[in-house]
Amino acid sequence: MGPHPAVAAIRLAVRRVLHDVLNEHRASGARDEPLVLAACSGGADSIALASALAFEAPKLGIRAGGVTVDHGLQEGSDRRASEVAVRLRTMSLDPVDAVTVTVGRQGGPEAAARDARYAALDATADRRRAAAVLLGHTREDQAETVLLGLARGSGTRSLSGMAAVSGVRGRYRRPFLQIDRQTARKACMAQSLPVWDDPHNADPAYTRSRLRHEGLPALEKSLGKGVVEALARTAQLSRDDADALDAWAAEVGETVRAAGASGEAPVLDAAKLFALPPAVRRRVLRRAAIEAGSPAGSLFAKHIEEVDRLITGWRGQGVINLPGRIEVHRRCGSLVIRRRDEAAAEH
Amino acid sequence: MGPHPAVAAIRLAVRRVLHDVLNEHRASGARDEPLVLAACSGGADSIALASALAFEAPKLGIRAGGVTVDHGLQEGSDRRASEVAVRLRTMSLDPVDAVTVTVGRQGGPEAAARDARYAALDATADRRRAAAVLLGHTREDQAETVLLGLARGSGTRSLSGMAAVSGVRGRYRRPFLQIDRQTARKACMAQSLPVWDDPHNADPAYTRSRLRHEGLPALEKSLGKGVVEALARTAQLSRDDADALDAWAAEVGETVRAAGASGEAPVLDAAKLFALPPAVRRRVLRRAAIEAGSPAGSLFAKHIEEVDRLITGWRGQGVINLPGRIEVHRRCGSLVIRRRDEAAAEH
Repeated sequence: MGPHPAVAAIRLAVRRVLHDVLNEHRASGARDEPLVLAACSGGADSIALASALAFEAPKLGIRAGGVTVDHGLQEGSDRRASEVAVRLRTMSLDPVDAVTVTVGRQGGPEAAARDARYAALDATADRRRAAAVLLGHTREDQAETVLLGLARGSGTRSLSGMAAVSGVRGRYRRPFLQIDRQTARKACMAQSLPVWDDPHNADPAYTRSRLRHEGLPALEKSLGKGVVEALARTAQLSRDDADALDAWAAEVGETVRAAGASGEAPVLDAAKLFALPPAVRRRVLRRAAIEAGSPAGSLFAKHIEEVDRLITGWRGQGVINLPGRIEVHRRCGSLVIRRRDEAAAEH
Repeated sequence: MGPHPAVAAIRLAVRRVLHDVLNEHRASGARDEPLVLAACSGGADSIALASALAFEAPKLGIRAGGVTVDHGLQEGSDRRASEVAVRLRTMSLDPVDAVTVTVGRQGGPEAAARDARYAALDATADRRRAAAVLLGHTREDQAETVLLGLARGSGTRSLSGMAAVSGVRGRYRRPFLQIDRQTARKACMAQSLPVWDDPHNADPAYTRSRLRHEGLPALEKSLGKGVVEALARTAQLSRDDADALDAWAAEVGETVRAAGASGEAPVLDAAKLFALPPAVRRRVLRRAAIEAGSPAGSLFAKHIEEVDRLITGWRGQGVINLPGRIEVHRRCGSLVIRRRDEAAAEH
């Protein structure tokens, strides 16, 4: 008798990713057995992930390890992390690290916890020389991420959710983006693996938790049961679209440089910009602003729209200020993007 | 004292659209006063629209008319349509038509009602030789349309909502896509215009109604008040992205034709397709399938993905069947897309 269907599903998902990791490891010229870590909170998703890694890795000549992060945000979280580490070792994962982090405040509680977590995972992967770190994000997590991106209203890239491969040298892998949470839970039950429900996941102070327990269920009630799957598919399609448009903008970015322009400040030809499709033109403008020194995280659609009106709605507007002390103005059919202090020095 | 801010907002929105309509009318060489119709259900959005049209049109030398559609779905809907027509005439709109339609069943009750309504609006616009028909869709309607598209999970185009300009020769205009429903309602109150609440809008049998009264409010509760605005912005950005990618696919479509291919069946070069970004390649494949005769409405992402695997995951697959009796197979490095009967005739 084969394994429970849920167990088979999670193992297959992990096996596919391990094949990729192994091929890339060999392609890089390495001949040793690569180490792959499962990042594990103790919740059903990541316990399922660790169990599948422990089962599949030895068959492929991969060493399987684990890492759990103690965010120190709850009473007894250190004990919890030790327990998770024990469970990972019980699954024969080796090495297993329990890492304690200090969560700051920047960007709100969820972003701060995430930043601290990834910094710890990065450090652990470096120290252990791991070829990859597996993350247990499921299709539901992906759907929630798409809705969070939708709420930003900043377009196709923000709808593209989490990547199956991300991080430095593609270190992070998410084998479960097509697996639903229920399957992970069933796989744990079928293997008699105890799981822990993080109380943060049910805390309505967190946007993602509200989305999970109220927003997404209400949306399913209105639109039907396929919403999670549709959102996950939207992520993939949006990612491909955003990649293609970014590539186009990068290519065309060189051709719109105004003739004779030199120095660090981008000077772009307004007529050439005008001829581009709006979606490409806005991306070219955004890239040029970032290149000039405007910080990507503070540069919003409304800024780019204002710059775009120098091209599409030119009526002698003055200088436009962008975050990072960058200014844009139009002069003699060219768009000049530069630091405010450079501009001041010239006057 | 100027008008109430809500009245000023709806008038400005309509005035901008009327300017466009007038410019296009003149550009076409016409010298007469164009006729613009407001489509009006009697609800707050479209009563506000009609009032703004009645106010702005005469100042621009535009004739303002109205049209209301009786869907015949409720007891007394004919009387309702007559009342709406009377109100439109009271606003000095002329001509005013009350048109009765028969709603079929195809595609479900909402789609059938919409098809019948647009057919009636088209017929009325033709008969009255109207230059444009204004529709009262608000930012909330746009947000709902984006969520409905999201539920289909078919990518950027399906997230692009309703166009500001659509229909034959750009006949339909939606001046209120940036106006919220509350503004339209306030504008009616400020002008003492009675409005009618369509009971269908609150009927939970309709997906859009469930979305309006349950899904969207729950999403706002989870994600914050800016969701409607974010969804409306997503629509515009997605539309531009989809347009740019479609243009790219159309351009590149010619260059991937296999050398020596002739006849009606598209023959595409697999190596050239492979080199394209996935988002562009899938659009090229979709266009080719439609060109070969596959009906666009039945051709889903899963079909195109299967065809795409002939390019990206070639392992000697057999013929792939697409809707409309179209088949695709790979032979000697080329993708052949043709009708099944043509294929049979060859054997």
